[in-house]
Amino acid sequence: MTRNTLAAALALGLAATAHADEGMWMPTQLPDLAAQMKAAGFEGDPAGLADVTAPPLSAVVRAGGGTGSFVSANGLLLTNHHVAMGVIQYNSSPEDNIIDNGFVAKGRAEERPANPDFRVVVTTAFDKVTDQVLAAAKGKTGRAYHDAIEQASKQIVAQCEADGSVRCSVANMYYGTDFYRIAQVELQDVRLVYAPPRAIGNYGDEIDNFMWPRHTGDFTLLRAYVGPDGKPAPYSENNVPYQNPAFLHLSAQGPKEGDYAMLAGYPGVTYRHRTAAEFASQIDQVLPRRVALFQQMIDTIEAATAGDAAATQRYASQLQGLKNNRKRAAGELEGLLRSDAKTLRGADEAAMLAATPRTQRRSIDALFAQIAGGASVGERDLLLQQVSGATQLLRSALLLERLRIEAAKPDAQRETGYQARDLGMIEGTLKQVQRRFDPKVEKALLAHVLGRYQQLPDAQRVAEFDAAFGRTPAELSARLDALYAATGLGDEATRLGLLDKAKAGQALGDDALLAIAGPLVAAQLRLEHEAKTREGESLRLRPAYMQALFAWRNSQGRALYPDANRTLRISYGRVESITPRDAVTWSPVTTVAGILEKNTNAYPFDAPKPLLEAIAKGDWGNTADPALGTQTVNFLTNLDTTGGNSGSPVLNAKGELIGLNFDSNWESVSASWWFDPRYKRAVHVDMRYMRWLMDKVYPAHDLLAEMGVPAQ
Amino acid sequence: MTRNTLAAALALGLAATAHADEGMWMPTQLPDLAAQMKAAGFEGDPAGLADVTAPPLSAVVRAGGGTGSFVSANGLLLTNHHVAMGVIQYNSSPEDNIIDNGFVAKGRAEERPANPDFRVVVTTAFDKVTDQVLAAAKGKTGRAYHDAIEQASKQIVAQCEADGSVRCSVANMYYGTDFYRIAQVELQDVRLVYAPPRAIGNYGDEIDNFMWPRHTGDFTLLRAYVGPDGKPAPYSENNVPYQNPAFLHLSAQGPKEGDYAMLAGYPGVTYRHRTAAEFASQIDQVLPRRVALFQQMIDTIEAATAGDAAATQRYASQLQGLKNNRKRAAGELEGLLRSDAKTLRGADEAAMLAATPRTQRRSIDALFAQIAGGASVGERDLLLQQVSGATQLLRSALLLERLRIEAAKPDAQRETGYQARDLGMIEGTLKQVQRRFDPKVEKALLAHVLGRYQQLPDAQRVAEFDAAFGRTPAELSARLDALYAATGLGDEATRLGLLDKAKAGQALGDDALLAIAGPLVAAQLRLEHEAKTREGESLRLRPAYMQALFAWRNSQGRALYPDANRTLRISYGRVESITPRDAVTWSPVTTVAGILEKNTNAYPFDAPKPLLEAIAKGDWGNTADPALGTQTVNFLTNLDTTGGNSGSPVLNAKGELIGLNFDSNWESVSASWWFDPRYKRAVHVDMRYMRWLMDKVYPAHDLLAEMGVPAQ
Repeated sequence: MTRNTLAAALALGLAATAHADEGMWMPTQLPDLAAQMKAAGFEGDPAGLADVTAPPLSAVVRAGGGTGSFVSANGLLLTNHHVAMGVIQYNSSPEDNIIDNGFVAKGRAEERPANPDFRVVVTTAFDKVTDQVLAAAKGKTGRAYHDAIEQASKQIVAQCEADGSVRCSVANMYYGTDFYRIAQVELQDVRLVYAPPRAIGNYGDEIDNFMWPRHTGDFTLLRAYVGPDGKPAPYSENNVPYQNPAFLHLSAQGPKEGDYAMLAGYPGVTYRHRTAAEFASQIDQVLPRRVALFQQMIDTIEAATAGDAAATQRYASQLQGLKNNRKRAAGELEGLLRSDAKTLRGADEAAMLAATPRTQRRSIDALFAQIAGGASVGERDLLLQQVSGATQLLRSALLLERLRIEAAKPDAQRETGYQARDLGMIEGTLKQVQRRFDPKVEKALLAHVLGRYQQLPDAQRVAEFDAAFGRTPAELSARLDALYAATGLGDEATRLGLLDKAKAGQALGDDALLAIAGPLVAAQLRLEHEAKTREGESLRLRPAYMQALFAWRNSQGRALYPDANRTLRISYGRVESITPRDAVTWSPVTTVAGILEKNTNAYPFDAPKPLLEAIAKGDWGNTADPALGTQTVNFLTNLDTTGGNSGSPVLNAKGELIGLNFDSNWESVSASWWFDPRYKRAVHVDMRYMRWLMDKVYPAHDLLAEMGVPAQ
Repeated sequence: MTRNTLAAALALGLAATAHADEGMWMPTQLPDLAAQMKAAGFEGDPAGLADVTAPPLSAVVRAGGGTGSFVSANGLLLTNHHVAMGVIQYNSSPEDNIIDNGFVAKGRAEERPANPDFRVVVTTAFDKVTDQVLAAAKGKTGRAYHDAIEQASKQIVAQCEADGSVRCSVANMYYGTDFYRIAQVELQDVRLVYAPPRAIGNYGDEIDNFMWPRHTGDFTLLRAYVGPDGKPAPYSENNVPYQNPAFLHLSAQGPKEGDYAMLAGYPGVTYRHRTAAEFASQIDQVLPRRVALFQQMIDTIEAATAGDAAATQRYASQLQGLKNNRKRAAGELEGLLRSDAKTLRGADEAAMLAATPRTQRRSIDALFAQIAGGASVGERDLLLQQVSGATQLLRSALLLERLRIEAAKPDAQRETGYQARDLGMIEGTLKQVQRRFDPKVEKALLAHVLGRYQQLPDAQRVAEFDAAFGRTPAELSARLDALYAATGLGDEATRLGLLDKAKAGQALGDDALLAIAGPLVAAQLRLEHEAKTREGESLRLRPAYMQALFAWRNSQGRALYPDANRTLRISYGRVESITPRDAVTWSPVTTVAGILEKNTNAYPFDAPKPLLEAIAKGDWGNTADPALGTQTVNFLTNLDTTGGNSGSPVLNAKGELIGLNFDSNWESVSASWWFDPRYKRAVHVDMRYMRWLMDKVYPAHDLLAEMGVPAQ
């Protein structure tokens, strides 16, 4: 393709110089990056950022499913509106609709307890335990290697948690190369302090999601409380505000193009250091396969529900999910093609291998063979996932059968998802069938998915699935008709009765779907074992590849960060515009003018009247941008982020808080695999917008004073 | 509205300084604008542009439905691909598909004759005849004033055309203030010389139409021929290339942001100098009414054709037209609201009136009353237009009845559209009914449109329509059912038989639809008379308003151009980027990179392989932009244009040809009423792109040499 050739040429041209702002660094790496950070404009001491348990990094915590940061000495915690949405919902009712109206606590007595399962997690220790973890695995291979590491990790966690004061985990860095023990304190009494109305906190909703320029006040303030003894405690009137050893200071200034910026948070998962073969597989096979299958499943559901209002309603949510997944996979594929990631990663790896001593190559070659083996069953695994993942009745049968098997084991030894604490979730799954099921649609979906499975080569076939569903479309169709005519699982009482039996590990009886579930679950367990064996081999072999990559990057004068794994990372870079397409440039700072432009007075562009009036009035207090002469809203940086960075604080060159991460641009959806400096941006709430809202629109002057940025 | 208030404040702030680039000037006005043009950067003598019949302006001609310009001494003529599309189609066939493949004549012998009705029109005289035209109207009012001007104009045309060498017309400037006689020579032998493939000439089609950034090579080269005596003649092998007294010279350089630019062409119609009341009516009533009615008609057709594939097919074209009209009206409304044109025009007029002597105010007040009267029947007129405009069978009946009446007059006295030369068109209209008609859809449309008519106040009612269709929805429904059950007009042979009778002025017989057509046409004629009476009053009274406006603009130090009326105009300004929305900026020059970005290999983004290969190769010859280091495609200026400016040449400060106008941006769709310098842009083909295509992609080196820009 001429297109890729040109893109490759452009990207190769950039590759030499463009890596300065790529990287989700472990804080411990920062001292080694001091020169680069200084050159980028950081005015503080990078060494001061190395300890996640000391100020200022200890101000950054996990909050709910995202990141948060303390912004006062008295436990005031800043995170995203969408991260705190559960807390807001929990406190909202038709009579007191704080989702729509927002919430401002007038004094601490008005702060409202979060849902009891909402947690703020403060890291108190972070230590390398690589030798301990790997000692037990030495000499082992495959599943045994995998299980040895799992076992060693469980032991470390148990020791760490022995005194009952902390929750612990072991994080795997660089794909099995290093392991870190993390100890954390869980704060259980969290309260809602300030939330803007939904039409500010989620202005634009799905339409604007990923779509810079954005105009959303996606922030919320919470407060953490502890017992009078300073220890974590469930909600109590007697609790006192938590005093974290560190909190962030809001800047009196705001960001402008070119300014240094950095961000701390808990990015979820990236694949940047995967092999060239994995890149090629992702681009040539995995993503096109996902796009095609999801589209076919969408078409199948739409055809099967056409003209049937009840069925249309029942499958609306699944259809929406498939469309989102399809769009996301298509966007990722488009981005990887635009960046020509396959060519670039291939060239990079080839150069690395050429520079790697022959003695190290044996493990790397073994890894490559391992990866090829896994990729060869990728299509089958995707299709078989849908058999349980995209169905209701068949999924119920498989779930009950698996639970029956797991129930025979002691709780601690059961597979995750089938332990005592998971039983409520399983019951929920069995109960929601009625609202999401229509037999003709489920049969149509299975006919499509299993019909594609039937076309796979013999080597990928699974005997139990062939036995259950036949080898031809005609057999498949007849079996599905017979199964769904005969099964009694469509009845909720029947399913819940079977749940009681399964929980007790009792035989489930002779229902048609349960009859095939027996052998199908046996097959699933066998495939699961094969996957864990591959995983073990990967854990064993990939460190050799990573060592070669360390050496190669070192020879290029570049450091290597571990791929994201939900541990605390820091990225640094700058406020930067983007040219997403020929002749189109987006400024890095948006203003309230854009709220007026987008506003239609209809959801999701239905800014509240007080906001519209305040914009019309134009009284910006002390928060207007001096150059723009108006109130800013959001801004854009080239910081390296991925899912999980929601709520990350964005700091300026002085380490002061200037922004709150909440989104990415659509062009960077492929950045989980490839960081393209032309397109990778992160989207933040300008703290000046938060301050203006709290000063002029939904006033909370006490809170501004508490954060050290009093209203004018 | 807060939104409007802010927009008004912004626009008022701009209003003081922003008029420099507004204006579609008559060439005769340019000497008076010399200082402004020089200040804008023009390096030539504005006085040299004053005479439309002398070089260089005499190089600019009307070509087909747009504008063209001569670009060589031997009749080579540049215009848009879309302006010359009829010529290209006429020469294309399935075996020799030059629409898809493009066309390059290798030498003059290969140039292909245009369709015989394609004309190139060269202006040879342009003279003020105001006194002559107005003399006869003096002392008259209303319809008599209108008819006196029409009569005087016809006499002037007849005298002017007496020797048979030229075609003449009279143009009305400043709404009846001035009149100009225009004489033109029509060149009849025009040939196709060079056309790019459709996927270059119309790259992006409707999706990109109005949507900057654009990447379209919308140009075509024709050549005009004359008889061996130098006089216009129909196609003949013996004809020789026409040697126009002037032709434009292509610049060796290209445009860049901030450069001076100017453009000459034949803009169609604008309403910039309409009264504040007309602006208010357009914004508050006319456009919202059109948007709502068209949407309701769309909904009506979609509901009536649902599930009927044949009917869906028959109404596809009408539906598309309604959707385009709705989108256009909505875009115009959005733009006028964004610019707060009502407030600004109102303030401007109020200030003008305050500065206008009381003695002049009487005519202006009479004009205002006149306008209010016309506006009061605006909704009725729109609805009644649809009765014939949006139907097939009822339209046929009305057409036949009107033709029967007109046929009784001498041909020259018949209403335009019913003269001998129009009979082919009428027959075509009657024949296409079968492909575009379904009785249930036509009844549904009429039920909606006439249902709305029935809700109008009594004062707006038309007795004949009430008699034909009843006064209640129930009566209407019953009448429509009865009419369409009884009529025989659904039969093509019947309609064509009636056409023969109508042409002969004979009675048409007793068909049910023809029975109501009699009184309905009588009503239409009466309404037509009323409209011409209002038009006459407007012609009589509006010059007083224009005089006040002249004086007011003069006091502001600003000149006044006449609203566009398809006569030759010049606008000047500069190459300029645009910020259409908060944080979004579009550069004024696009490059071939954008072609690759947009290309999907599927219509309309299916750039030809030779183009893609040439871009990948990157051999730009002597046409690359020195700063961008690549090949440019289109560019943007703030020049004042409207529909009809298609094909207008764009000149640089030296008067050299740098661009070819072909589109506007969507944000300027409201510029026919209001020029907002923040949003008004015009879109041009960069002549360097044309040269590159002719040099490297579809070579035509002889033509480049003929234009004085030889390939490298």
